[in-house]
Amino acid sequence: MPQNHAIRFGVIGCADIARKVSRAISLAPNAVIAAVGSRSLDKAKLFAEANGFPDDAKLYGSYEAVLDDPDIDAVYVPLPTSLHVRWAVVAAQKKKHVLLEKPVALNALEFDEIIEACESNGVQFMDGTMWVHHPRTSVIKDFLSDAHRFGELKSIHTCFTFGADADFLQNNIRVKPDLDALGSLGDAGWYCVRAILLAANYKLPKTVLASRDPVLNEAGVIMAAGASLYWEDGKVATFYCSFFSNLTMDITAIGTKGTLHVHDFIIPYQEKEASFYTSSESKFDELVTKWDSQPSKHTVNTDLPQEALMVTEFSRLVGEIKFNNSKPEKKWPTISRKTQTILDAVKASIDRGFEPVHIQE
Amino acid sequence: MPQNHAIRFGVIGCADIARKVSRAISLAPNAVIAAVGSRSLDKAKLFAEANGFPDDAKLYGSYEAVLDDPDIDAVYVPLPTSLHVRWAVVAAQKKKHVLLEKPVALNALEFDEIIEACESNGVQFMDGTMWVHHPRTSVIKDFLSDAHRFGELKSIHTCFTFGADADFLQNNIRVKPDLDALGSLGDAGWYCVRAILLAANYKLPKTVLASRDPVLNEAGVIMAAGASLYWEDGKVATFYCSFFSNLTMDITAIGTKGTLHVHDFIIPYQEKEASFYTSSESKFDELVTKWDSQPSKHTVNTDLPQEALMVTEFSRLVGEIKFNNSKPEKKWPTISRKTQTILDAVKASIDRGFEPVHIQE
Repeated sequence: MPQNHAIRFGVIGCADIARKVSRAISLAPNAVIAAVGSRSLDKAKLFAEANGFPDDAKLYGSYEAVLDDPDIDAVYVPLPTSLHVRWAVVAAQKKKHVLLEKPVALNALEFDEIIEACESNGVQFMDGTMWVHHPRTSVIKDFLSDAHRFGELKSIHTCFTFGADADFLQNNIRVKPDLDALGSLGDAGWYCVRAILLAANYKLPKTVLASRDPVLNEAGVIMAAGASLYWEDGKVATFYCSFFSNLTMDITAIGTKGTLHVHDFIIPYQEKEASFYTSSESKFDELVTKWDSQPSKHTVNTDLPQEALMVTEFSRLVGEIKFNNSKPEKKWPTISRKTQTILDAVKASIDRGFEPVHIQE
Repeated sequence: MPQNHAIRFGVIGCADIARKVSRAISLAPNAVIAAVGSRSLDKAKLFAEANGFPDDAKLYGSYEAVLDDPDIDAVYVPLPTSLHVRWAVVAAQKKKHVLLEKPVALNALEFDEIIEACESNGVQFMDGTMWVHHPRTSVIKDFLSDAHRFGELKSIHTCFTFGADADFLQNNIRVKPDLDALGSLGDAGWYCVRAILLAANYKLPKTVLASRDPVLNEAGVIMAAGASLYWEDGKVATFYCSFFSNLTMDITAIGTKGTLHVHDFIIPYQEKEASFYTSSESKFDELVTKWDSQPSKHTVNTDLPQEALMVTEFSRLVGEIKFNNSKPEKKWPTISRKTQTILDAVKASIDRGFEPVHIQE
């Protein structure tokens, strides 16, 4: 693509995750880093230097300045969740396309303000869930959609846990009620729920029930939680997320005819290849002393890391709008909202003393 | 060991599973198959022929005849669960040591009659859970007990599902309320619960809550179910069992410092070796684009299949009682009862409309 067709990104906020996404913007063939804004010009300068920004990238001492820059097509917003609605709405109003970190909002109603602003301003929305852009994910989805190899989904269990250190548990935005009030549920649970939705073909469950013993910190922010989800057709999902356990991220999906195991679904063990395991129509031998066959390992290679593929896809959609008069792709805000809806239901179930919460599509 | 020190087994009932355990008795170095009893002498004969019984094995047309045979030290009881209490109690009264299929009873109170009969007659009790006798299981237990590699257990998920065919769903004892009334919960859930107990160091949870959508057949027998279990210290366990899904059997145990994955914990993929995966202190790289290290695969070899090791251990304990005046080992009935107690709680939670059920140690 001609360089002048590349989508010009501004980054607002210098969170840790912005380092990785800035690199991804540099790696994406259809995007360029054009500006960074922080609450101080010094921080923006330091961030740009530390992350190898191009010399002509603009440095701003405020978020507004990035949004007011007519050379910027799109913004990446890594700010704490409590600031999402404010800055995503302003960005949309300034006709900037919005790539927003997850969780997208503190609740779905708040997220609706973001969607409304994006829709009425004709800008693309996408959340920062990177793993769904890895080519492995579509191969996994093919397996889960295969009537012969997988059949009908009956149960799925997902988890994402990591061991946060003392500094994180004291100071990270994810433990602060005024910043990322959903804590581990919003941070880690988000991915678990997205994987469940992907396997359930993005159909929302009818009922969500939080596990009975979530761990809250002194400020009431969720440090560890789980839930079970129930669909009309009898499908069941469970997930577990925590800041207090060894790093683990699994999808175990069981269908009538097949089984899927993924052990590194959010961040693959390696950048350029990622694997998963499937089995179909598994059987024991006649005397039930061993299996007829073992699961198959599937490996998918990628030249670009998944976060760069996310930026590439987002930039492609933005380019379609900018250069070809296309409409924004609604798939992305739709699945963001479904993910948020389930998080809301888990949170509501906790708040109501572990009552089941019913969801309407 | 001298052949006259080998423990002489009688098998009562010719269930499918008795074929595998008869082979295991033949393989065990300290046991011999000495008799089989069925409701008809013809069936006993056919079973003995089909399963390569020694020529001097006695064939009986009733269960009582096996129990009355003074040459028999121990009985293997593969009868439907509803018959367990009757026949295990009579066996103990006739001073036969009892190797009993799982689930051990329809409920823990019924099982207490079995324990009482075994204790008052000085005979060994063991249930037919084979996988705990695989040498892999003790290596797994070592990992789970390791404060440095695994730390403290925080969450565990187990499952056992298989796709039962139309004949099974119509005719198998496990779908019949008068035979194996606990259905999939007693058959498949038993193993899930045992794995959870092993990881929890056999400490019972304080609360058990059944998943909201169990599948029952027309007779009200459980075909698919799940539950979550909660301990005082905040540990959480979930499990899922089903007759309607592809064959799958997992343990995923997450501790503060380590993670365990097992994908074939009940029946290993192969008879003579079995694997599992561990990771400890797992971390991402600095930019969170990949992992520092991948899980380690551990493989444990065994000359004898796990069911023969079960028979060997049971026979060793019987030998200690018979030849060395030892007392029966209480560990085995104790963990059987704990497993049954949790199954009872899951069943009670289902029967009470998914209320949490509190357990007292």
